[in-house]
Amino acid sequence: MSHRRLTASSRSNVPPFAVMDILARVSELRAAGRDVVSLCAGEPSGGAPSGVSAKAAELHASGLALTYTPALGTAELRAAIAGHYRRWYGLDVDPARVAVTTGSSGAFVLGFLAAFEVGDRVALARPGYPAYRNILAALGCEVVEVDCGPETRYQPTSELLEAAARERGPLAGVVVASPANPTGTMVSRAELSDLAAWCSANGARLVSDEIYHGITYPGPGAAGADTANARGVCAWELDPEAIVVSSFSKYWGMTGWRLGWMLLPEELTPAVDALAGNVALCPPAPSQLAAVAAFSPESYAEADGWVAEYAETRRTLIDGLGPLGWGPAAPADGAFYLYAELGPQLERFGDSREYCRALLEAEGVALVPGTDFDARAGHRSVRLSFAAGSAAVSAAVERILRFQAKAS
Amino acid sequence: MSHRRLTASSRSNVPPFAVMDILARVSELRAAGRDVVSLCAGEPSGGAPSGVSAKAAELHASGLALTYTPALGTAELRAAIAGHYRRWYGLDVDPARVAVTTGSSGAFVLGFLAAFEVGDRVALARPGYPAYRNILAALGCEVVEVDCGPETRYQPTSELLEAAARERGPLAGVVVASPANPTGTMVSRAELSDLAAWCSANGARLVSDEIYHGITYPGPGAAGADTANARGVCAWELDPEAIVVSSFSKYWGMTGWRLGWMLLPEELTPAVDALAGNVALCPPAPSQLAAVAAFSPESYAEADGWVAEYAETRRTLIDGLGPLGWGPAAPADGAFYLYAELGPQLERFGDSREYCRALLEAEGVALVPGTDFDARAGHRSVRLSFAAGSAAVSAAVERILRFQAKAS
Repeated sequence: MSHRRLTASSRSNVPPFAVMDILARVSELRAAGRDVVSLCAGEPSGGAPSGVSAKAAELHASGLALTYTPALGTAELRAAIAGHYRRWYGLDVDPARVAVTTGSSGAFVLGFLAAFEVGDRVALARPGYPAYRNILAALGCEVVEVDCGPETRYQPTSELLEAAARERGPLAGVVVASPANPTGTMVSRAELSDLAAWCSANGARLVSDEIYHGITYPGPGAAGADTANARGVCAWELDPEAIVVSSFSKYWGMTGWRLGWMLLPEELTPAVDALAGNVALCPPAPSQLAAVAAFSPESYAEADGWVAEYAETRRTLIDGLGPLGWGPAAPADGAFYLYAELGPQLERFGDSREYCRALLEAEGVALVPGTDFDARAGHRSVRLSFAAGSAAVSAAVERILRFQAKAS
Repeated sequence: MSHRRLTASSRSNVPPFAVMDILARVSELRAAGRDVVSLCAGEPSGGAPSGVSAKAAELHASGLALTYTPALGTAELRAAIAGHYRRWYGLDVDPARVAVTTGSSGAFVLGFLAAFEVGDRVALARPGYPAYRNILAALGCEVVEVDCGPETRYQPTSELLEAAARERGPLAGVVVASPANPTGTMVSRAELSDLAAWCSANGARLVSDEIYHGITYPGPGAAGADTANARGVCAWELDPEAIVVSSFSKYWGMTGWRLGWMLLPEELTPAVDALAGNVALCPPAPSQLAAVAAFSPESYAEADGWVAEYAETRRTLIDGLGPLGWGPAAPADGAFYLYAELGPQLERFGDSREYCRALLEAEGVALVPGTDFDARAGHRSVRLSFAAGSAAVSAAVERILRFQAKAS
């Protein structure tokens, strides 16, 4: 008997996230009685619209058996999601092209599997949401990170894609997120149209992450301001071959419910249907049944109220930035993130990981270092989530000022 | 501009399931007013234990924000699952080795990703649950189907694995299901021990699907009868390097809740944790919070009551088989399936797909043809689910008799 030692696969070797250490330390500090202000979480803390919670409570109380639904979701929810596209974008979406998924995470796994082969090259912006990169790598795709800076609002452009394809080889896909995580920046209609045209001309599938749609701050200078639709531009307004990904997690505040969706071009729909039946069986049934209530006028009004609160908190945070003396921040067009360079603070702390570590220990403020979103330049930046509200943000700014004063 | 036409990936080319056509036709027939008896569904129809539903109703009514949980699940649920292993198997499981997942589907995706590279060979029994094969293929693994017949209770043996490895090359993994779908057969403790020893000696990872544990029918001649534990033997009793997969879907009747788990060897735990954070973020939070109530004495008692009902229905079905004049059936040691050869009926209908189609049209009885579980010999067999209860099974048998009498 040889008895070779079994190990984990190389594709499961996901780079560790600094935020995990920070969250663990936040728990320890809180358990020890410290008052910690966390601006880490990429999620609203208020919960679902009340009509959704009420519907969920009612269906569980009724004793209804919550069995498997069709793999792509209930007909009722798919139709309701199609209706959402008429309401927000004036788009006529066939419910048969809507795939309900287990969060946007489930959508990315299924969409990437259906669209890309092992070895396919897929481009995405750096800085960016690390799960795109890590899911693609786990599925055997070659990730092409396109460095995007302030000169392009941290978003890819057709010129950047062209250069990436020249250097690395033809691209099978391009992931675009608007509003983006961690920067909050958006692409305009003209910019998205240009990206879609490049994809179409170059045989690349556009994957448009629209999970933060609806959480936008239109105003002079914002990317949303030059579009007809301040909630974000849906890629299907421009490119019916795109995969559009969205979710109930952000605008409707339903992160833990694990419910999202995709709009799928016709040729991918049977593939995703078959894959979903094997890989997931179906999205969570209770979440699906309750989520139809997310599209009521009352739920939209409630969610819009939260967006108004984010806007106020965002203003508080931007106003507080000046005294901090950091470097430039990305224009937070949408989402609930501010991505800022640390500027002169970098000289003292070396990099953003050390800055975040020291800040948490000294003043109990938790931020995410940019290294989690950008392995190349993220050591210069931090991400602040303002989903926690104005009081938390004000307290954090005050503590950071004190921390920097002491450290100098 | 070249404008190449975009297509679905080859890895998303999942073989179509006959059951999907059958389920669609069942819906059509019912919509047209026909009375259809469906023995298709692999799920209990009664719903969750009442304590679980009550807890879910309560937490939604409380307005609690259901945000992301840790990627591997809440500490409370992981500890409760560990407690289940003490209760049923006398095993001391460290809660840190329990990964809560989005159904057993989520467990297979994460477990396969963490354990196997692209190109790795993984063996499994034919007939078997098609999702193992389709998930592995989508993830780039080479699926080695091991033909298993009545002489080995439709289960793999070390001899069969040895022969498969000789023919196809070294195996990186072996998936074993006991009770199995579609056959319901179980491996004994000695047989599982032999399989585990073969895996250990040959550097293969054992993946043990224990999702039907607790739904077993011990008795003279049943595989469960020669074990100390009639609920099924847990692979961790024999092989701590195995990945054990289970779920709330079957014994507790919570299919739509999408909640399962894995027991993970230590070296796979960080990999699964990191992968889960990217691929799934976390399992559904409401399901997790409610599912702790599944481990109350009342919930176990309720679930055991359902198992007693399945046992009665199974008896009704087995008694009804004689008059049908089919060929041999697999010994239904557990789960709620009977997998039977059609015998002389095959001559009339050619194969099980045509038999099932004709039966559904003539008498409104829906069965699953064996082709969905076995591309080689499944044309000879059908799967009957007896989760629908004794009345449905009796009605089905009566209709099948009438159908066969007319057809002859």
